Amino acid sequence: MLKTLVVGASGYTGAELAAYLQRHPYVHLSGLMVSSQSLDEGKRFSELYPQYKGLVDLPLQPMTDVPKAANGIDVVFLATDHKVSHDIAPIFLESGCIVFDLSGAYRVQNTQFYEKYYGFEHKNSEWLEQAVYGLAEWQAEKIKQARLIAVPGCYPTVSQLSLKPLLEQNLLDTEHWPVINAVSGVSGAGRKASITNSFCEVSLQPYGVFNHRHHPEIVTHLGTDVIFTPHLGNFARGILATITCKLKSGVTEEQIKAAYQQAYHDKPLIRLYDKGVPALKAVVGLPFCDIGFVVQGQHLVIVGAEDNLLKGAAAQAVQCMNIRFGYEETQALL
Amino acid sequence: MLKTLVVGASGYTGAELAAYLQRHPYVHLSGLMVSSQSLDEGKRFSELYPQYKGLVDLPLQPMTDVPKAANGIDVVFLATDHKVSHDIAPIFLESGCIVFDLSGAYRVQNTQFYEKYYGFEHKNSEWLEQAVYGLAEWQAEKIKQARLIAVPGCYPTVSQLSLKPLLEQNLLDTEHWPVINAVSGVSGAGRKASITNSFCEVSLQPYGVFNHRHHPEIVTHLGTDVIFTPHLGNFARGILATITCKLKSGVTEEQIKAAYQQAYHDKPLIRLYDKGVPALKAVVGLPFCDIGFVVQGQHLVIVGAEDNLLKGAAAQAVQCMNIRFGYEETQALL
Amino acid sequence: MLKTLVVGASGYTGAELAAYLQRHPYVHLSGLMVSSQSLDEGKRFSELYPQYKGLVDLPLQPMTDVPKAANGIDVVFLATDHKVSHDIAPIFLESGCIVFDLSGAYRVQNTQFYEKYYGFEHKNSEWLEQAVYGLAEWQAEKIKQARLIAVPGCYPTVSQLSLKPLLEQNLLDTEHWPVINAVSGVSGAGRKASITNSFCEVSLQPYGVFNHRHHPEIVTHLGTDVIFTPHLGNFARGILATITCKLKSGVTEEQIKAAYQQAYHDKPLIRLYDKGVPALKAVVGLPFCDIGFVVQGQHLVIVGAEDNLLKGAAAQAVQCMNIRFGYEETQALL
Amino acid sequence: MLKTLVVGASGYTGAELAAYLQRHPYVHLSGLMVSSQSLDEGKRFSELYPQYKGLVDLPLQPMTDVPKAANGIDVVFLATDHKVSHDIAPIFLESGCIVFDLSGAYRVQNTQFYEKYYGFEHKNSEWLEQAVYGLAEWQAEKIKQARLIAVPGCYPTVSQLSLKPLLEQNLLDTEHWPVINAVSGVSGAGRKASITNSFCEVSLQPYGVFNHRHHPEIVTHLGTDVIFTPHLGNFARGILATITCKLKSGVTEEQIKAAYQQAYHDKPLIRLYDKGVPALKAVVGLPFCDIGFVVQGQHLVIVGAEDNLLKGAAAQAVQCMNIRFGYEETQALL
Repeated sequence: MLKTLVVGASGYTGAELAAYLQRHPYVHLSGLMVSSQSLDEGKRFSELYPQYKGLVDLPLQPMTDVPKAANGIDVVFLATDHKVSHDIAPIFLESGCIVFDLSGAYRVQNTQFYEKYYGFEHKNSEWLEQAVYGLAEWQAEKIKQARLIAVPGCYPTVSQLSLKPLLEQNLLDTEHWPVINAVSGVSGAGRKASITNSFCEVSLQPYGVFNHRHHPEIVTHLGTDVIFTPHLGNFARGILATITCKLKSGVTEEQIKAAYQQAYHDKPLIRLYDKGVPALKAVVGLPFCDIGFVVQGQHLVIVGAEDNLLKGAAAQAVQCMNIRFGYEETQALL
Repeated sequence: MLKTLVVGASGYTGAELAAYLQRHPYVHLSGLMVSSQSLDEGKRFSELYPQYKGLVDLPLQPMTDVPKAANGIDVVFLATDHKVSHDIAPIFLESGCIVFDLSGAYRVQNTQFYEKYYGFEHKNSEWLEQAVYGLAEWQAEKIKQARLIAVPGCYPTVSQLSLKPLLEQNLLDTEHWPVINAVSGVSGAGRKASITNSFCEVSLQPYGVFNHRHHPEIVTHLGTDVIFTPHLGNFARGILATITCKLKSGVTEEQIKAAYQQAYHDKPLIRLYDKGVPALKAVVGLPFCDIGFVVQGQHLVIVGAEDNLLKGAAAQAVQCMNIRFGYEETQALL
Repeated sequence: MLKTLVVGASGYTGAELAAYLQRHPYVHLSGLMVSSQSLDEGKRFSELYPQYKGLVDLPLQPMTDVPKAANGIDVVFLATDHKVSHDIAPIFLESGCIVFDLSGAYRVQNTQFYEKYYGFEHKNSEWLEQAVYGLAEWQAEKIKQARLIAVPGCYPTVSQLSLKPLLEQNLLDTEHWPVINAVSGVSGAGRKASITNSFCEVSLQPYGVFNHRHHPEIVTHLGTDVIFTPHLGNFARGILATITCKLKSGVTEEQIKAAYQQAYHDKPLIRLYDKGVPALKAVVGLPFCDIGFVVQGQHLVIVGAEDNLLKGAAAQAVQCMNIRFGYEETQALL
Repeated sequence: MLKTLVVGASGYTGAELAAYLQRHPYVHLSGLMVSSQSLDEGKRFSELYPQYKGLVDLPLQPMTDVPKAANGIDVVFLATDHKVSHDIAPIFLESGCIVFDLSGAYRVQNTQFYEKYYGFEHKNSEWLEQAVYGLAEWQAEKIKQARLIAVPGCYPTVSQLSLKPLLEQNLLDTEHWPVINAVSGVSGAGRKASITNSFCEVSLQPYGVFNHRHHPEIVTHLGTDVIFTPHLGNFARGILATITCKLKSGVTEEQIKAAYQQAYHDKPLIRLYDKGVPALKAVVGLPFCDIGFVVQGQHLVIVGAEDNLLKGAAAQAVQCMNIRFGYEETQALL
């Protein structure tokens, strides 16, 4: 039994992690931790999330002595702010833990990236170099060896899973940058008090146009330029990405289908649509990324959908853990 | 043209007041004010409420010098916290303004009430004595003479409008206390950052059971005991109150109908249902209180519905102003 | 492995049954059936419910030859219309199946009840006499012996689970009829095309006031009169029941707590609240019924919450099956 | 006073028309009509739309004798199915009515268009030739002379209003087709019973990819190719269109701003954003189209928002009527 700890367990992603780990047959959920400034410190998990009453009643411990917390832990999940992850990941790593970081702190192997997009100086370049980007369907071999897995962001996961098979097969005319329009549920903004996320204020709207941190993450890992426009949707969970591309001249629907099949025929958490495109409801509460597409002439519309908190965060982290430790990839997820 | 000022214009009720006053033919909306601690100070109203862009673009002034703000104003609407209203109402009154207070500060003519339920000592007992409770359909004669009108709370409005005609006609067996189950939209909690009101947290739930400030307001003005259970609903606006009563032996459906007709046949903002009961959608965005009922034997279920921000707050305040100044009762409201 | 069949699998309750049975370790989901008039006939289950793509892809068979369908089946779940259940249950019973009927056709052992409230003549009185009412926490001993289990309706489940412990202990003044105000999600109306359930039409509203079929079901099984007012809520799933009662003189909060503890301390699907009352979100997607209460003087407000499709239907049916066959009560449910 | 008739008054667009016309100072709402197969025939308007109780209580007349219905009517609004509009518009026109048709039947002056996209043969080519496309901000001079105004579809309105100023000024590189991703509220599908629109089924999803009737309407009137992907959103009302374009080399943000200013500075129902882009809530319930944009290099994202039932249908129809008869353009709309 792996002894696991979730740091940042009061947030929506942390909560999903706690729930998955609690029911994982080869895992012992050893503790739940919150940042020491949190008002939730000392409460039981199920006081914040009443749906888990009787299922996960562990207390939320303050993050006061990280080295001590790391002691005896095999695996830690960091569902913390970028800077906090940046700071504490090395402590866990040096203690021998395998670290699954769900923040942006170790996703791009370029320290300048952090000053530019995250506003802090990255001081752990040696760990950054060792970090493996946990896009599970594409990085399994590296994940198996990794000590620090940087789990991708929610938008980058669905965007890359949708585009990568076509780029690998060189089917897209990348002079015409793919246009990624994505709509995310409000939970993507995290569990916090804010006017923006308050019930009466939420309505469909674009945000961060040409200016969202996930754009450079997508471009870096995809190796091609894209136009990425995220939107806030008036729903709690899920991301639907509508991606418009131009095909290289002569590329057929069959080639596209074959590219997806080749990439994902043996991947249990990707569901390909023979015809049509996914609706958001297909994935809410589930660990899948669903992908469908429609072609007309040289134009292609791909639709990818995932639960932003699951395949876009907690489920992918657990999937990475399963891969890392040789468990069945969907263990505890389905 | 009445020169009017709205204090607390950044809140949901204040915003509705601003919109009504802006389109009122006999009113000039002279200013919008926010409490001096507000982060919204200095912004334009339409920055907070983009729907009013081009319609109400006035700046939100800080409430720094109240006597100066009162100068030259005929009518002020206080959509402020109870304690703030308590403090500033006299300043406006002494300056000659007619004051419509939408807080609880002047609703019950008993100073001890405020220590018990609102947590502050009421120091303006002479103004409290002069205040008229602005339940518009029942207090028109007093409102016409009043200088300080205490506009009722949202739950008390729908509860009293539903029950008062039957109590006046002595049709209820009040040994069996009426059971008022009411569900309010999230806007009832005001415009503020809080976890409770955040999009992902809201779900139908009772709150303040046996312990809500509107309970004593209802009981005092109705003159009878009731059991009042408010609920938060997962919608932005509106209140639906389901009220279960016991009739006195022998009371007929016709007597109930007659009681409502007598009370409201000439009241333009009350809509009585010949059969059936209202749905919430009938009143959202509208200044009405809709009332329907069903009888079986000695049991009666009354359903009252209103928009909590309109008939439960801003529309009733404007209705009171219309009555006070002799305008048509529905002026600017329909 | 029990061979199980779900009839009415295209409906919301049938879909939840299919999902539970698919993951039950001691069950083989042998088939999914729809009424022979259904437009869904011949489709795969996951075409209707894309969330189950890859999980439950069985075809929806037409219900053309029931005796043949019953052949080789150990357990059948009828998530069908009342009259259909009435008609086909005996065919399965005579074929040796254990029948879990989720309709109203066998819930009350009085044939006249059906003419009055369901509009059909009950012709299977001998089976009706043998039917066991599947309120799982209260009927386990009878369920263990039963061949036909009539799973209670959604409103009756939460109402009875909330009130029964207090009635058993004789704590309520039943001269004052308990007032049950309950709000149900739209899924309670079933999966069907209708204006009433269309997205733009739904808003909070009472329906069936003094006139809902679940009222006599509650009264019959509870053995006391109640006033029951159901409401449609603007959410997909869940029921929240707010129940206002009068206590017998002298009854204490401790006695109430003790009554609930005694009834439910060993029942894994009932969660009692030490303080406060449940919110709907605590139970959506989960098989629990959550119960909390507040007392003031002789007045008591109980709040019960459940997922109408789960503890109010499919989960309770599977719980009954688990009890009937000696599996752990929560098998496949948690 | 213009005598006006609304045909198709039971639908969502028809209902908005009825409400606007009822409050228009120079209009008499003479009648409300529904297609003769409608189940709503004979009901009062406010039975379908309880929010209008006491405001619009006219009966819904069957459409049995159209020539008789046209008699004495000055203006008719057809909120009917395309084929019905096609058939009855000439009857009203020949009776001397001015016709505002909100269907697609007279929007494109090419009879083959109708066979291809609408599935019927257009038999009224002489009227089709005379029809004026009612994109109000761009067609005012023609509307003033028109007898038959074909009010644009909801998606085409927001798409054209957003793109036309830039195309007129020749600022876009149209080799890169503009990508229009638009999300519409469920009301766009009309008031009807269907599984697709039922409350529990709706979730964000694309539909009609490369295959929506509004695509050729947009392309025809805009005179340039676009990629148009409509989506169903989980909200009742509104459309938000996110439009991604490539600018011609050297085009500046100032040129874009100037193009919009030139086109719309004197148009009361277009609201331009100095910075940022609109959220859907800015326009719901209001007759505006709001437009904002963000530029980066040669890439441009425009966001247009409107209420699909108002500027996308009923408000634009009334705006056209106001223009046609020389009233203030916003009469009855604000």
